Amino acid sequence: MKQFQDRIRAEGRVLPGNIIKVDGFLNHRVDTALMRDIAKEFKGRFDLSGLTAVLTVEASGIALATICAEEFGVPMIFAKKAKSDNIEGGLYKSDIYSYTYKKKVTLIVSSQWLGPDDKVLVIDDFLANGEALRGLVEIVQEAKAELIGIGIAIEKGFQPGGKKLREAGVHLESLAIIEQADENGIVFRGE
Amino acid sequence: MKQFQDRIRAEGRVLPGNIIKVDGFLNHRVDTALMRDIAKEFKGRFDLSGLTAVLTVEASGIALATICAEEFGVPMIFAKKAKSDNIEGGLYKSDIYSYTYKKKVTLIVSSQWLGPDDKVLVIDDFLANGEALRGLVEIVQEAKAELIGIGIAIEKGFQPGGKKLREAGVHLESLAIIEQADENGIVFRGE
Repeated sequence: MKQFQDRIRAEGRVLPGNIIKVDGFLNHRVDTALMRDIAKEFKGRFDLSGLTAVLTVEASGIALATICAEEFGVPMIFAKKAKSDNIEGGLYKSDIYSYTYKKKVTLIVSSQWLGPDDKVLVIDDFLANGEALRGLVEIVQEAKAELIGIGIAIEKGFQPGGKKLREAGVHLESLAIIEQADENGIVFRGE
Repeated sequence: MKQFQDRIRAEGRVLPGNIIKVDGFLNHRVDTALMRDIAKEFKGRFDLSGLTAVLTVEASGIALATICAEEFGVPMIFAKKAKSDNIEGGLYKSDIYSYTYKKKVTLIVSSQWLGPDDKVLVIDDFLANGEALRGLVEIVQEAKAELIGIGIAIEKGFQPGGKKLREAGVHLESLAIIEQADENGIVFRGE
């Protein structure tokens, strides 16, 4: 998605530790018109017939997943991290390691809202090590729902998450795959 | 907003501790079409001329705030809780008490994305004690931005947040104000 890659190159910044900072339009201040363009792009890349839900994980995936879900005409479900008082029993759970927070985190989804009749598209803003996505895929499996695929805005191609998911046979679509990011700038896969 | 109140009565559940569970359509599985209806309702209730941003706080406010921001044609900014490695210096901060997690939480917004030229509408899914909103209002003040008002989906009228904000002169619009919620059902303000 050329327009999106141009935006990342123009406005993104590379920080030490291979951090790609795109918080001006993707994951702190969110350009909602861009989210709509991304949703339309995903619509062309997946077979969404029979889709019943878009699934993501709090917090930074929610904005994109919401616009995608509205574009596809289905509800958006977000997995929560750890347990708040407002969620009762009957949960699907998956333990993941959060590289952002450097600790174990449990993803939870109420079993009321996902089951064997569901066809799910997973959406997230970033894919790096793929731990959050591994957790979401596990939750879809726990629910005995069908995973149609995973749509990602930015994949860090130099980290192992994308490779692992593709090798596992998941239909993964990343709109910008960054192969290299340093003081010389950003190189996308295919360039 | 009658349609929304009917939905809360039909699908919401009252749990011990005055918890109103609406996670089937508002804050776990999200009905994106309903979010669009709510955004349109807010459009009629606020003077949005010159609006530059919708501000909310992670995580459960993001879905509604995203659709509102798209409806109003502005970016959506979400305050983060505590500090992750991906946010640098230059932050607006406000300490609040989270009743959900029973601890102090610091809300942060990068000063890059909010400043004296901004006109901001704050959006959130719930208003109870009003701590999260107090924090967001403080951040708008710190940024020397203009607060147009606060739009809330569900206000718990029997908790003090709404009263405090109205007494402080904030233009607060809540689409459903719950006066009473117990085993006998839900009573909305004005009924």
